[in-house]
Parts: sequence; C-alpha cells; structure tokens
Amino acid sequence: MSSPSAGGVPALGQPRDERFAGRHVLSVKQFDRADLERVFRVAHDMKVMVGLVGTTDLLKGKVLANLFYEPSTRTASSFIAAMERLGGSVIAINEVKFSSVSKGETLEDTVRVLESYADLVVLRHPEVGAAARAAAVARKPILNAGDGVGEHPTQALLDLFTIREELGRLDGVELALVGDLRHGRTVHSLARLARWFDIRLRLVSPSSLAMPAEVLDDLREGGVTFTEHRDLDEVLGSVDVLYVTRVQQERFADPADYQAVKGAYVITPAVLERFSPRGIVMHPLPRVDEIDPACDADPRAAYFRQIAMGMYVRMALLALVMGRA
Amino acid sequence: MSSPSAGGVPALGQPRDERFAGRHVLSVKQFDRADLERVFRVAHDMKVMVGLVGTTDLLKGKVLANLFYEPSTRTASSFIAAMERLGGSVIAINEVKFSSVSKGETLEDTVRVLESYADLVVLRHPEVGAAARAAAVARKPILNAGDGVGEHPTQALLDLFTIREELGRLDGVELALVGDLRHGRTVHSLARLARWFDIRLRLVSPSSLAMPAEVLDDLREGGVTFTEHRDLDEVLGSVDVLYVTRVQQERFADPADYQAVKGAYVITPAVLERFSPRGIVMHPLPRVDEIDPACDADPRAAYFRQIAMGMYVRMALLALVMGRA
Amino acid sequence: MSSPSAGGVPALGQPRDERFAGRHVLSVKQFDRADLERVFRVAHDMKVMVGLVGTTDLLKGKVLANLFYEPSTRTASSFIAAMERLGGSVIAINEVKFSSVSKGETLEDTVRVLESYADLVVLRHPEVGAAARAAAVARKPILNAGDGVGEHPTQALLDLFTIREELGRLDGVELALVGDLRHGRTVHSLARLARWFDIRLRLVSPSSLAMPAEVLDDLREGGVTFTEHRDLDEVLGSVDVLYVTRVQQERFADPADYQAVKGAYVITPAVLERFSPRGIVMHPLPRVDEIDPACDADPRAAYFRQIAMGMYVRMALLALVMGRA
Repeated sequence: MSSPSAGGVPALGQPRDERFAGRHVLSVKQFDRADLERVFRVAHDMKVMVGLVGTTDLLKGKVLANLFYEPSTRTASSFIAAMERLGGSVIAINEVKFSSVSKGETLEDTVRVLESYADLVVLRHPEVGAAARAAAVARKPILNAGDGVGEHPTQALLDLFTIREELGRLDGVELALVGDLRHGRTVHSLARLARWFDIRLRLVSPSSLAMPAEVLDDLREGGVTFTEHRDLDEVLGSVDVLYVTRVQQERFADPADYQAVKGAYVITPAVLERFSPRGIVMHPLPRVDEIDPACDADPRAAYFRQIAMGMYVRMALLALVMGRA
Repeated sequence: MSSPSAGGVPALGQPRDERFAGRHVLSVKQFDRADLERVFRVAHDMKVMVGLVGTTDLLKGKVLANLFYEPSTRTASSFIAAMERLGGSVIAINEVKFSSVSKGETLEDTVRVLESYADLVVLRHPEVGAAARAAAVARKPILNAGDGVGEHPTQALLDLFTIREELGRLDGVELALVGDLRHGRTVHSLARLARWFDIRLRLVSPSSLAMPAEVLDDLREGGVTFTEHRDLDEVLGSVDVLYVTRVQQERFADPADYQAVKGAYVITPAVLERFSPRGIVMHPLPRVDEIDPACDADPRAAYFRQIAMGMYVRMALLALVMGRA
Repeated sequence: MSSPSAGGVPALGQPRDERFAGRHVLSVKQFDRADLERVFRVAHDMKVMVGLVGTTDLLKGKVLANLFYEPSTRTASSFIAAMERLGGSVIAINEVKFSSVSKGETLEDTVRVLESYADLVVLRHPEVGAAARAAAVARKPILNAGDGVGEHPTQALLDLFTIREELGRLDGVELALVGDLRHGRTVHSLARLARWFDIRLRLVSPSSLAMPAEVLDDLREGGVTFTEHRDLDEVLGSVDVLYVTRVQQERFADPADYQAVKGAYVITPAVLERFSPRGIVMHPLPRVDEIDPACDADPRAAYFRQIAMGMYVRMALLALVMGRA
C-alpha cells in the first residue's frame, strides 16, 4: 500500500487493518491480488447490502471532503452516494474558490484545510501527481479520484469488479480492450491490473492508437498474455468481455485516417450477434457514438450496471481506509 | 398516473400503493381529484410533523439525485430540504459536468447513471419533454421539477395546497389569476387543476397577455367556470385569492403598450384595502415590482408561507413515490 | 446580543438561553466577555467531542441553509462540516441562481425563502450590512459568515479561541498583529475583541498600511494596551502570538514602496529562531508568500490547527443559537 503518512487511530473495539486502515489510495500499483480480492469481497458485501436495505451506519459520524478541482458529475456523485449509503456525511466541493481578497493557495494548503474538517479526502485534480502531493502532507487518508492523465484507480477497480460480478470470475477471462488504447488512463490501468489474475488481453485498435510501448512492457514484465489486433472480428468470437472506448476524431493528424477507421470499433446489434451469448459489453462512459443505443436492451450490455459497481467499490474503499471493513 | 416504466419493489412489510409508489411525477395531467386529495392530506401531515419535530426518518437510507441542468436555487433547495426532513440523503447536482475528456452525453444516459446511485431522481431541464424522456429509460421514479416551458407539476400542486391550507377549502373558492397569463406555465397548470374542484377562475390580464386559447379550451372541456377581465377592480371585491404574476416589459412588442398597463396589476396596500379581509395574496416568486414590499406585513400576504407549502408538498410526493406514505 | 427579530420556540424540555438561543450572530460587537467565554467553553467541548467520537446528534433534525452569494470554499466547508458533525443537515448554496425566467430578487426575499426550508441561515454576501438586512426580515437565526469589508465575526472568534486553546489563556497574552493592518476586517475585529481580555497588542505594519484611526480609537476607548511598530524585531522577542496577514502589492500606490517592505513581514525559520519557544504563529489563510512553508513543521506553526478551531467555534455557535448548548 501507499506511503502511510499517518491516518487516524482505530476506534475502540475496531480491528486495525494494516493494509487499508488509515492508508491512502493513490494508484492501482499499490494493490496486489490479495488486496484486490479483499476490496472486491467488501464491494460485493456492499452490493448485497444496498440491494437489501439501501444503506448502513458503518461510517455514521464520519465526514468526507469530496474535493473536485475539475468537475466530474459522474465520479463526484458516485463518491457522494457511496459515503451517504455508508451513513457518513459529505462536504461536496466542485470548484475550489476563495473570497475575492484571496489569490488562491497551493493544493497542499487546501488539502490541509479540508482534512481539518473531514475524516478523509477524495481528490480530483487536473495535474498528474496531485494525489501524491496531497498525500505527502495529509494526516487523513487521501483517495485519488483522478489526477490528469495520471491515475484514476477507482475506475480500474470498478472495471475489474464488474467483470467479477457479471461473469462470476476473473481467472480465465479473455478481455478485449477496444478503440483508443493509446490515450486514456482507464485502459492502461485496467490492463496493468490483469497481471494479478489469469486474464488474457486482446488489444484492438487502429495502429496509430495502439497501446503504448511502456504499458506493453509492463504487461510482459507482469507475465500477462496479450495479443494486438486491428480488426475486432479477429477476437469477437472468443472474448468474454468487450471493453469499448471512444475513438476521437481529434486524436488523428489526418482526417482521412479517422474516416478510414471510425466505424471499425462501433458496437451495434449486428456486432453483438457475433459476440458470445454469455459475454458482456463494458464502457467507462460517457459514450458518444461508439455503442449504438440499440444495444442498450441487450442483456449483455453491462455499461449501466458497471456504474453501480463503481459505487460499491467506492463504498468498499471508504470503509476499508476508515478501518471499518 | 404516468407511465410506470418500472420503479423499485416495495420494502418488506411496506404496503405498495398502486397510484404513487414507484411511479413518476411528470405532469399535473396525471392527477385526478382523489390523487390530489391524497397528496394534500400527506402534505398536511408533513406540515404538522415539521412544526412539531422538524424531521422524520421516513426515508432514512434513501438517496435522492437532485439533477438540475438549469440552476434554480429555490426549487433545488426545496427538494433538498424536503428529502433531508424525511431523513434521506441528497446528491445535489446544479450543473451537469464531465471531466475535460468527455464531450457530454445524452440526458437519457446521465439519468441512467444517476439512478444507479440513487433511489429516485428529481429533474430540472430546460427542454420541454425532458422529464418524459428521462422517465422512458428510468427504472427509478422521476420527479419533474420543471422542463422548459413545459410542466412544473410540483409548483401547481403547492399553489393548490397553499389555498387549501390558508382558506381551509378548495371547493367554492374564487381564484383570480393576475398579470401575464399568456406565458408562464405556472398559471396554465394551476388553471387546469381547477377542474377537479369547484374553483371559479377570474383571469385578469392585458389583452396581449391573455390566457392562451388552448388553456381556455381545456377549462371549458373540464367544466371550469371562468371569466376574463382587463381590470383588476372588476374582481377584487369578490375573489378569495389573488394569484399575482409578473408582467415583463420584454413581452411587449411596443414599449408604449407596456407603459399603458404596467401599473395595472401591481399589488399595493391601497389595492389590498379593496380586497377581502379573509382573502390571500399568492405569488410564485421571485417577485420584482408586482407586489409592493409594503404589503409583506399584511396577514393576507401568503407568498412567503407559500414557499414552505412547496416543501411540504415535495415531502409528500417523495414519500408517496417511495411507497412510504 | 443582536436585535432578536424572533427565532424559534425552544423544543420541549430544552432550556432557552436568553443570550444565544434564537438570536442572530451578526457582529463581534454583540459579544461581551461572558458571551465569549461561553462560546469558547462550548467550542472546547466540541473539540473534545470531535476528538473522541467525531459527531453528535445535538442538532439531528435541524436544517442549515448555507447561503453564500460569494464563493468561499474554506468558510462554507467549515460551516457545512460543523453542522454535519452536530448531526444536522445542510442546504449548501454556493451561488444564488434562479431559472432563466427570473431576473433575480432582493436579498431579503431570498432569505425569507430559505428560512422557510431551514432552521437557521448562514449568510456570506459581498455587501457591507447584508447580514443585518437579512436579520431584519428573518424569523430564524442568521449567522454572518462575512459581509464585504464589514464583519466576519466567526473568524475573529476562532482567532481568539485558537489563542486560548494553544496557550491555555487569553489574559496576559501579548499579541502581535503583523502585515497589512489597514485593510482586512480580520485584524480589525480581532483587535477590537482584545478589550474583553488582558491582551496587549503590538501592531506591526508599514506606515502606509497601519491600523486605521477609528480602530485605534476603539482600542483606546476599550482600554486596550497597544503599541505600533514598523519593525517586527522590536516585538519578536516578547510576544506570545504572531498573527500574520498578507501584504499585497496592489495596496501600494508606488511599486518602490512595496519593494521596500515586502520582505519585512515574511515569517521564515530564521525569524522563528528569534521568537518565543512557547509562542504560536497564526494566519487567517490562504497564505501566499508571507509564511515560508519551511515553517510548517515547526510546532509553533498553529495556522493549520487554527482551521479546526474554526469548525469548533462554528459548532458552538450553531448549537447555541439553536438553544442546544
């Protein structure tokens, strides 16, 4: 786990978990298989609990500072709902603003202010490394909710958790990552987590948007089985999961290149006809054109169920770092 | 009631009400007299409860997504307070924003995301029909908090409820709608609800801002007694309720026309001298010049009490659609 | 205490405190020594309580409208956290906005709307006197969270409370106010509160940013011992508290004047070597250059602890005006 700059003391009678309680969640790199299984087990319990009764009082009396320097309705709402369903309270900050006399302050100072009010801080910031900078000064746990093109660990965790819940397993799964694999921290983080399970990766993208060499190096180093493809049809018949990302026109230097590939990674009902009847389609959302809404009614369309999985994973992390799970 | 696209299952031991539980609240058109009386009875109970103890735990553990695409401090705050006074939690979204990589998503997708976190969704949107579009895809209840010039059903319900609470009855009431009756969904919805009670309408406006023909058709079809007037004094002595709306200069093509009528519908202490001593003055707020603040101390000035009535009505609707009232 | 325009009735079985319950908090001028000691005693209890258990249910069922016309993440978050740690709920309004049809409304009307939903209102507004205007129409307690260059009473209270908690006393303290003493309501309010305790003031500033004559008159009238200084070293060896404020370049007509003094009031580790080993350094935050971050690790750096003190003082005031402390 990440550098424990401190963290609170365990409440009376509560066991103190050395792997999570009082720790920061900054990067997927801090998790090993045992950690991931622990998070997923707690997240599954949260899913069951929400389905049965909606909320618990596990974090009653705890206050979360949800500090978003960069607006993100989806992620901010997910953390707010997670904290509320655990019985805790939230200070929701969508934009950091001071009164007219001030000229702003450093991220470090702002984090120190907010942790004075709260028991833990969720941080979204546009700059790479912001979460680590915050953690370096914080006495309370920091959860990274995305720092620029850097890390967004809860997204990667929820992606894996969705596969586990939908397919009932992670080992033995064949996972296609489809679309723009060059940009997008989401697919990079997810690919890197594959090393902890027997997950075979099928990397499907136009050549100009292929998975970066450094990620491929990490996969090799981690012993991950993977193959690269230009054509979705090469893997459509065999994979269990289609993880679809957006191919954005502005990523192409030459518009002609975009025109040549733009339809190649769009999921339609016709594509799904050639896909495993027991597979699932995932997407980090928001989608634009890359999945036809006509697919939404297909039971394999898991991308909206994936959203709820994000809430359960965040509930698990909140409970774990507070030493209550 | 509106198209029940689904809605949650009733909690164990909770009766499931077929008229409200799990349903959407999209339009005043979905309510008949029995529905309205039901809402008002529950809203009255909420009023009594708030006066005695402030809050209940009726919706403890429930989460409301308060999704406002268009800012409205008043309406948003009313729903937030309503949910909090019922013991529930709120995800308050005043502007829908995604991180810099996203290019926005459809209303339908955003609603599906937020209902994944929440137990019901209040929606304010600038486009007519937005609430119905949301309801068409939602598995959780949608409450329309205003969709453009379309519907704003909770406003019409709170207007009726205010009359009921202030005068002790709805049947037999003579209600003057005053000012700009051409624009403004508020007076259109309120007028249309009159059909369910023995309410006589006095429609008082400049001729260029008269009640639209289609609303008058609906009134005739519903058997509502109404008369049209240019001069407030024609009705001031007989009506029980003065419902005042704003006459905006920009609604007039010719400024001279505005100058000719602008003072004609302004409520002042002098006007109130000619008004029933047991009547009430209402206004949807915000007011600008159409009610002189010198009227505020008059016990018949009900427009601030009307605000609290909105909270009670919204508490009633939240409890009803969640199957808890 | 301030003009009690009304306030709620005490809950059954709750004692009604005549000095605080149901009253407004508008200005430091409304407090005498007994009031201040009362606030600090309750704030200290809140500090102990938060340290032990985090939250109470003292204001369970109460709703706070946190109405900020002017954004201030720090102050808004402090009040939100304070209310949540007392078990209450918050309607957080960071910008007052109405839907597109409206053209705004008066502060008075907005306050009357929000007090219809809430049990008390915290108000931040850019105009001097706004809190008093709100209080003049409000039936619920108003807490001034800053009105322009006017008052910001909770800041002054938390400053005094910090000294009390850090040094264990207020009487006999020698307090240096350093930097821009001309502008900045913070130091004006803090200086004026010194009259209630045996606090000696050392006013350290460039001559162009000296404490205004009217504040000095108030100090003399209140019997406060004070001396004025240009050079920090004249007082550094004797004072117990260094209260540092920012010297902003834009306050100087001539840039050369700014260059001449800009470094003179900056706190560095070298400065702290000449400061009392048992003293404390305070700052209202945000800081820019006036305290070197290298000082942060010094145990005398109290400016981040000061932040938490603000939450305890606000908890105390919320509980007191609601008649629960």
